[in-house]
Amino acid sequence: MSPQGRPASVPEDGLTTRQRRNRPVLAVHTGDGKGKSTAAFGLALRGWHQGWRIAVFQFVKSARWRIGEQVALERLGRLHAETGEGGPVEWHTMGSGWSWSRRPGTPDDHAEAAAEGWAEIRRRLAAERHDLLVLDEFTYPMQWGWVDVGEVVETLRSRPGVQHVVVTGRRADPRLVAAADLVTEMTKVKHPMDDGQKGQRGIEW
Amino acid sequence: MSPQGRPASVPEDGLTTRQRRNRPVLAVHTGDGKGKSTAAFGLALRGWHQGWRIAVFQFVKSARWRIGEQVALERLGRLHAETGEGGPVEWHTMGSGWSWSRRPGTPDDHAEAAAEGWAEIRRRLAAERHDLLVLDEFTYPMQWGWVDVGEVVETLRSRPGVQHVVVTGRRADPRLVAAADLVTEMTKVKHPMDDGQKGQRGIEW
Repeated sequence: MSPQGRPASVPEDGLTTRQRRNRPVLAVHTGDGKGKSTAAFGLALRGWHQGWRIAVFQFVKSARWRIGEQVALERLGRLHAETGEGGPVEWHTMGSGWSWSRRPGTPDDHAEAAAEGWAEIRRRLAAERHDLLVLDEFTYPMQWGWVDVGEVVETLRSRPGVQHVVVTGRRADPRLVAAADLVTEMTKVKHPMDDGQKGQRGIEW
Repeated sequence: MSPQGRPASVPEDGLTTRQRRNRPVLAVHTGDGKGKSTAAFGLALRGWHQGWRIAVFQFVKSARWRIGEQVALERLGRLHAETGEGGPVEWHTMGSGWSWSRRPGTPDDHAEAAAEGWAEIRRRLAAERHDLLVLDEFTYPMQWGWVDVGEVVETLRSRPGVQHVVVTGRRADPRLVAAADLVTEMTKVKHPMDDGQKGQRGIEW
């Protein structure tokens, strides 16, 4: 309920609390339940308020159902540009062709598009371009072999500076879980779909 | 991954898909893991984009650690007032004394403050004042007997119109779970606190 809680134990890493607090976090939101991506976007709200440079990378072909979060977060990003409030926000979707890519549309090959996305993220991590990176649904390209899991995990583990990364999606690879600082599993206890109900406007998409 | 999925079965409730889609949702985010509240605030982002009238009620004494989400969502609410974009946002915290209450400060008695908060929420539900209500950490007043669980559940179950409600907090009462349309349990798989690390700025608070 409160972040003021005492740590379970005191680490012997020679770090001060401040140093520990400023350590970059690799978080994973996995499991079959809802809220994995939504919680990541909620974290972006906190980051925006702190002036973090935020970037969302959506590894899904059709990302229309995230439009609400995208519009709202990008609007906050525009506010930063206009008034200096909060921080900048970038939102890149594979489905519409990565925003930084000059080529119109997206590669026919999803694997190619995913690999292209990861290559760009790797370049940005090396350049410490963002303070919070949300790799939305990135577990799927990892699972499907579209990117090299070992290389992804090593790149994330050895990223420079203080760059927080949140990876979302089902069936997170054990190597990613092992490398993560914070792993939360969202489990479906009950869902309208069970009763044959379609997605709720706003709740589902 | 996609909301276009076929329902597991077709309900025999005589409702059209549109009617079903517009049915109000009672969602519960529970479990010991992170992301319960953050996912609820992420839902508010989607709702904002759809022009929903959003209200967050925080049932915590000291709510400072939610300030990032509050500032960002309230900023989006101001944008609505200024430009008509999205929807209005209200954020009420028990910790600072409920915003609608004339009395300065918060009642000394937390139970009284919580009951006062619930009474106001009940009035607003009856008046259909909001489209999305986030009852943050509300499971605790329920658990501690500060509000009558049976009455809360019945009030939520019988709320009029199309008012989406999200209740967050650990150890959700079985009656609340039974009444909910959507229940997600956030389970902690791994957490920096385990290593004695204090909350990460932005990630934890």
